[in-house]
Amino acid sequence: MSFCADQLARTTSIWELMLSHRFLRETRDGSIAHETFANWMRQDYLFVEAAIPFIAALIPKAPRAHRVALGKVIPALETELELFRERAEVAGVSLDDVTPSLINHGYVQFLLASAYTRSYAEAFTVLYVAEKAYYDSWSVVRDGIDKGSVWYPFVENWTSEAFKGWVEFLQRELDGLADAAGPAERQRMGELFELTAKYELAFWEMAAGGASWPGLS
Amino acid sequence: MSFCADQLARTTSIWELMLSHRFLRETRDGSIAHETFANWMRQDYLFVEAAIPFIAALIPKAPRAHRVALGKVIPALETELELFRERAEVAGVSLDDVTPSLINHGYVQFLLASAYTRSYAEAFTVLYVAEKAYYDSWSVVRDGIDKGSVWYPFVENWTSEAFKGWVEFLQRELDGLADAAGPAERQRMGELFELTAKYELAFWEMAAGGASWPGLS
Amino acid sequence: MSFCADQLARTTSIWELMLSHRFLRETRDGSIAHETFANWMRQDYLFVEAAIPFIAALIPKAPRAHRVALGKVIPALETELELFRERAEVAGVSLDDVTPSLINHGYVQFLLASAYTRSYAEAFTVLYVAEKAYYDSWSVVRDGIDKGSVWYPFVENWTSEAFKGWVEFLQRELDGLADAAGPAERQRMGELFELTAKYELAFWEMAAGGASWPGLS
Amino acid sequence: MSFCADQLARTTSIWELMLSHRFLRETRDGSIAHETFANWMRQDYLFVEAAIPFIAALIPKAPRAHRVALGKVIPALETELELFRERAEVAGVSLDDVTPSLINHGYVQFLLASAYTRSYAEAFTVLYVAEKAYYDSWSVVRDGIDKGSVWYPFVENWTSEAFKGWVEFLQRELDGLADAAGPAERQRMGELFELTAKYELAFWEMAAGGASWPGLS
Repeated sequence: MSFCADQLARTTSIWELMLSHRFLRETRDGSIAHETFANWMRQDYLFVEAAIPFIAALIPKAPRAHRVALGKVIPALETELELFRERAEVAGVSLDDVTPSLINHGYVQFLLASAYTRSYAEAFTVLYVAEKAYYDSWSVVRDGIDKGSVWYPFVENWTSEAFKGWVEFLQRELDGLADAAGPAERQRMGELFELTAKYELAFWEMAAGGASWPGLS
Repeated sequence: MSFCADQLARTTSIWELMLSHRFLRETRDGSIAHETFANWMRQDYLFVEAAIPFIAALIPKAPRAHRVALGKVIPALETELELFRERAEVAGVSLDDVTPSLINHGYVQFLLASAYTRSYAEAFTVLYVAEKAYYDSWSVVRDGIDKGSVWYPFVENWTSEAFKGWVEFLQRELDGLADAAGPAERQRMGELFELTAKYELAFWEMAAGGASWPGLS
Repeated sequence: MSFCADQLARTTSIWELMLSHRFLRETRDGSIAHETFANWMRQDYLFVEAAIPFIAALIPKAPRAHRVALGKVIPALETELELFRERAEVAGVSLDDVTPSLINHGYVQFLLASAYTRSYAEAFTVLYVAEKAYYDSWSVVRDGIDKGSVWYPFVENWTSEAFKGWVEFLQRELDGLADAAGPAERQRMGELFELTAKYELAFWEMAAGGASWPGLS
Repeated sequence: MSFCADQLARTTSIWELMLSHRFLRETRDGSIAHETFANWMRQDYLFVEAAIPFIAALIPKAPRAHRVALGKVIPALETELELFRERAEVAGVSLDDVTPSLINHGYVQFLLASAYTRSYAEAFTVLYVAEKAYYDSWSVVRDGIDKGSVWYPFVENWTSEAFKGWVEFLQRELDGLADAAGPAERQRMGELFELTAKYELAFWEMAAGGASWPGLS
């Protein structure tokens, strides 16, 4: 069994909680409160912005063959930020002066610290799970959302053929990196796989529940 | 007004919430549940362990005069870990197979990512606030805790003259770094000051409330 | 006086040695030995390849406004590598199994270590000097080289309007970063300015003199 | 065959050039010029100073079991710096205002960049070869040097039982890391092994030949 298949099976219960999350269900059904979706938008805008340094920090450790692919992600993320700004204007959401929630901030720091302190295969695991989680999550929303919804362009973005191909590329490459790794490194890759899935689930909780910091207010 | 005095004044409301936290009050009064304190111990053991890489990652960026001081913190943290193991045995708390809560994990990643991606003065700000918060927090507990309490050695550890001197050294040095910084860097140092204080408050919330991950269970 | 003007004046003697180097003069005059230029080509191919991780490593530390600019350099460097491969084929030079000379390897490690251990303004200083040295050096060659020379496309590459604009952009931004820095950081920026110029001069020495390692053979 | 034994055999010709270097032979025989040894002292003082950030940068990537060992190296290097200052005073050598030669500077940058961009096992390879080269080199000097030589304390420092034990520890651990690595990583470890040996040989060349920069002066 490939590394990814194995890990996805091992962490099924987390993926089920993620993919059945009320934030995704309510976005799909159109019952989500405007302010709830706006909260996600503001937080995810910061997250995408912070993903650029993460990708950049992977490049010096990447094998030659991955450098070109990762180099192309940076302008793609800049384009994604434009999508947020465009939607924000259409939906009347302000992206100014947003500060990250604890979950958002901690997740971003996790991406960065993984890129700096972990082996390439380990940090690449984190990248894969984050992208896979978004593809799967927005695929849930796609199956039912009104195409006229103001939020529909986000669904299109993360369920497009291009994004699907990117996630499949990451999966193939991650399987290859896991095959080449020794058992101790593969063990650490598995731990990071689970940890990233837990952050993704926590991100939806925060999207649905609000961005306040624990103990504050 | 010095940088630290200025920032402590600016973030007073966070420090008040931190220093009046029920976890500290109940530990001081002896009313804290054994399992609640044990939860903090397990999580903070992981945090101290993870602080060693943070200190190490600061050293390559440190001015010559700080290197010796930071180099001595590493064995001091190893000694602190021994205190945890010794107390764990006395109090019948297991430190095996502990996994970090989201707040703990995110905070540790924040330390690491700051050391790698921020200027020395910015990352040093994070170090100061984390240490200052512990000195102030455990000083609250000291004023009232029964000296025969099984938890008393932790109080001693972070309210000792040695630790107080360390925090004062950090404060003086941080004021100096802030004086030498340009306005843009000083602005970022202030943002990190506030952010670290928010993590510290969140850590007490987690200590009191449990280590589960949002959405899981 | 702006930081760059000041530093260029301060290091004039190094720039004069660089810009009057026999490697440049002989390339301009068409008297350079084929194998000598081929040696430079092989070494510089490795250098350009290694510049990609350097640029990537700057991105996580860059202010928001610089990220987009730096992100675009990565595909530009990939295009530059294609120029090397195309010229290598035309000129019958093999780029396979090249290993870096000490000067080349040390210089590349200097770029990387600067990105990781220095402040953004300091590492940006290194980037500017490396690019400025190439613009100035190839401008010397341009004034006289036969446009039919097999090496002419390299001249075009680093003396183009686009490259000139890039170097001017870097100069303006570096002046701005120096204005915003405190005196201690500005002092370190000046040291790195000089050091990078010394590496550039050493690189031409190695281009002209061969890629062997000291003491070996 | 263990990884280290295998690599030492593979790079024999470099080690032979290193261990028969005139700098070592002349230091052993007492025929070395005072200024030549003083040049080495000044450069190596800078190198040892720069080794502290290298060791520190390894710690965040080190397995738990290595952290304590690496943490103890930092104060040991501080003590080594004191040995330099003490000898400098005795021998009338000034350590003020020394600037690194290209070979010294490039080697230090190589240590740092390896710690930041390579896997732990790869960067640990660099550490081992650097320490092994010093143990072997100074062992050559020990066999013949007058114990009353002003330079003798350096010989003692790097041929002591303690230093020998450290190099043996590194060798055992590196063999273990190589056993746990996949073939691609082991290949890269071998390349770094050879590269570090080449830097060590170049360092003796520079010690014997002077610290000037290529093309300058």
